[in-house]
Amino acid sequence: MGNWQDKVRRVVPYVPGEQPQRPVIKLNTNENPYPPSPAAVAVLQAADGAAFRKYPDTDATELVNAIADVYGISADQVFVGVGSDDVLGMSFLTYFASDKPVLFPDITYSFYDVWAELFRIPYRQIPLAEDFSIRTEDYFADNGGIVIANPNAPTSLALPTSEIRRIIEANRDSVVIVDEAYIDFGGESVLPMISEFDNLLVVQTFSKSRSGAGMRVGFAMGSKALIDALKAVKFAYNSYTMSTPMIQAGAAAMRDVEYMKKTTAAVVATREAFRPRLEELGFTVLPSATNFYFATHAKVPAEVIFTELKKRDIFVRFWKKPRIGNYLRITVGTDAEMEALVSALTEILKAY
Amino acid sequence: MGNWQDKVRRVVPYVPGEQPQRPVIKLNTNENPYPPSPAAVAVLQAADGAAFRKYPDTDATELVNAIADVYGISADQVFVGVGSDDVLGMSFLTYFASDKPVLFPDITYSFYDVWAELFRIPYRQIPLAEDFSIRTEDYFADNGGIVIANPNAPTSLALPTSEIRRIIEANRDSVVIVDEAYIDFGGESVLPMISEFDNLLVVQTFSKSRSGAGMRVGFAMGSKALIDALKAVKFAYNSYTMSTPMIQAGAAAMRDVEYMKKTTAAVVATREAFRPRLEELGFTVLPSATNFYFATHAKVPAEVIFTELKKRDIFVRFWKKPRIGNYLRITVGTDAEMEALVSALTEILKAY
Repeated sequence: MGNWQDKVRRVVPYVPGEQPQRPVIKLNTNENPYPPSPAAVAVLQAADGAAFRKYPDTDATELVNAIADVYGISADQVFVGVGSDDVLGMSFLTYFASDKPVLFPDITYSFYDVWAELFRIPYRQIPLAEDFSIRTEDYFADNGGIVIANPNAPTSLALPTSEIRRIIEANRDSVVIVDEAYIDFGGESVLPMISEFDNLLVVQTFSKSRSGAGMRVGFAMGSKALIDALKAVKFAYNSYTMSTPMIQAGAAAMRDVEYMKKTTAAVVATREAFRPRLEELGFTVLPSATNFYFATHAKVPAEVIFTELKKRDIFVRFWKKPRIGNYLRITVGTDAEMEALVSALTEILKAY
Repeated sequence: MGNWQDKVRRVVPYVPGEQPQRPVIKLNTNENPYPPSPAAVAVLQAADGAAFRKYPDTDATELVNAIADVYGISADQVFVGVGSDDVLGMSFLTYFASDKPVLFPDITYSFYDVWAELFRIPYRQIPLAEDFSIRTEDYFADNGGIVIANPNAPTSLALPTSEIRRIIEANRDSVVIVDEAYIDFGGESVLPMISEFDNLLVVQTFSKSRSGAGMRVGFAMGSKALIDALKAVKFAYNSYTMSTPMIQAGAAAMRDVEYMKKTTAAVVATREAFRPRLEELGFTVLPSATNFYFATHAKVPAEVIFTELKKRDIFVRFWKKPRIGNYLRITVGTDAEMEALVSALTEILKAY
């Protein structure tokens, strides 16, 4: 073996939640319990297979136009990618090319520091307050960019848009990314501010409220200048990131706003119905603006509950990390799945 | 407007061939004139839409296993991505992290220097010989990595595997990438050498011989150590690059080897049938091991022919670049498309 390994980039990859292939109660990766829009599935099933011999439309016009129409913005304010991870990863590469540190919370989507490490971007993780809230003033420092997940994950807490406005106003010399993966389940979007602030990028996804995690579609919205910079980097990486079938099915899913609202409302109703049930069992549950709970138990360690649930084929998420090592992140499933969860928890906690 | 633009990465993106949406004779992006495997289309049309609510299998096991089975290698020697551009781009990021220059020909796939620029990788473009062949000895210099397209594009010329072997043997301290996008139309693959050289990465695609450009599937094959390094970077960028439908349809397309061989043979037959027709018209046509011709005309400038063909809704590829500025790259279409091309060329050349 030669020394080629010396030339290889060393990284510590992000570890996604488990994706067991056998049927389990899967409350560990914040998937939507309802299927994607029937309109999207129909488009896929009726796809003209012969057309796949050709490269897709590089601009994914059909999908971009659907997003622009639904959000009432123009097509040149929209960027699409292979899930919001692709959009966010490419945004890190595009916007954070200075020597100054990018700022984001210490407890947030755990891919942010992975992207920064991958692309050798300096960064500083700012501790959340004791109650896991974001302290706006902490982001008034000199920086190379700012990333805020709103609502934040895994805390499930939403930040008022007035607070995000303060962060943007104090940071006109950096790009401010607001990762709104969970926005449709609660929080208020800062999207209306993109016409006011040309340095604000709003990132959303089809994986949560649109039940399309398996389709791999994410998108960003921002000023034309911001989107143009992102497109230039994308075209310097891969001319065609979006497959033809996903462009077509994605457009149909996006335009079916009514279905998205209906299923999202069902998830929110389940979330609120089962919150008191969890509290009765001794959990402290943070006020969630998302499709998951972030919860800690008064007596039983999170790791014990996580392990016991897994034995019963119920998967939730647990991180052995500072500050959140006694919390569980539990995706809101169907009512039936939540009943099964409550039953299992009752049994597990009885032993303590 | 603040100074956020100072922090943005400046790039000169790759310019893909035009993708006109109206029906034209499209011989400009080396797509296959035949549709993808009916088996793949059937899988897509029968897809279980409800399953798309869940994230895909991060390892794309079904697709990876299909590739491993077809090529007689093990699954841990296979990497998949969103077209070979994604695979190659990520390979540049992964393997070329030294300060030494990566080597590739001056005339080759024009994305190589774009990726090097994007990721700030030093590189040196080595001139092809006068006859557009690769001179093996030119790659015996100290380097940070080597990339060879075989057959090369846009020249269409294949390098014997014995010559590539010499390059690899002289470069055990760097990763050698052999981009075999067009291998199924002619050249001989170096795939058997991956068991011998742990620093050899072979990259192939579904976009050409498998008629799946719109599906966005590419793959790399190499030693487990090489593939592990690539996977680590991939998991540090996007946990889920392959959508569930494309994993499933891709696996079906890969396993339909017979269909691929049949359509590839048809393309090769057309290529050989129309080569003398082009020569009769005054073209010098390089010996193609691909699904395209690289041709120059004795009397009429390539740019004139390119423009005249376009007026007649026949799209071919032309680069206003040193050394190849009098050449056209013409994709091999169906017999009917090639007849239309020959007619149009006859008409155009008559005027000179």
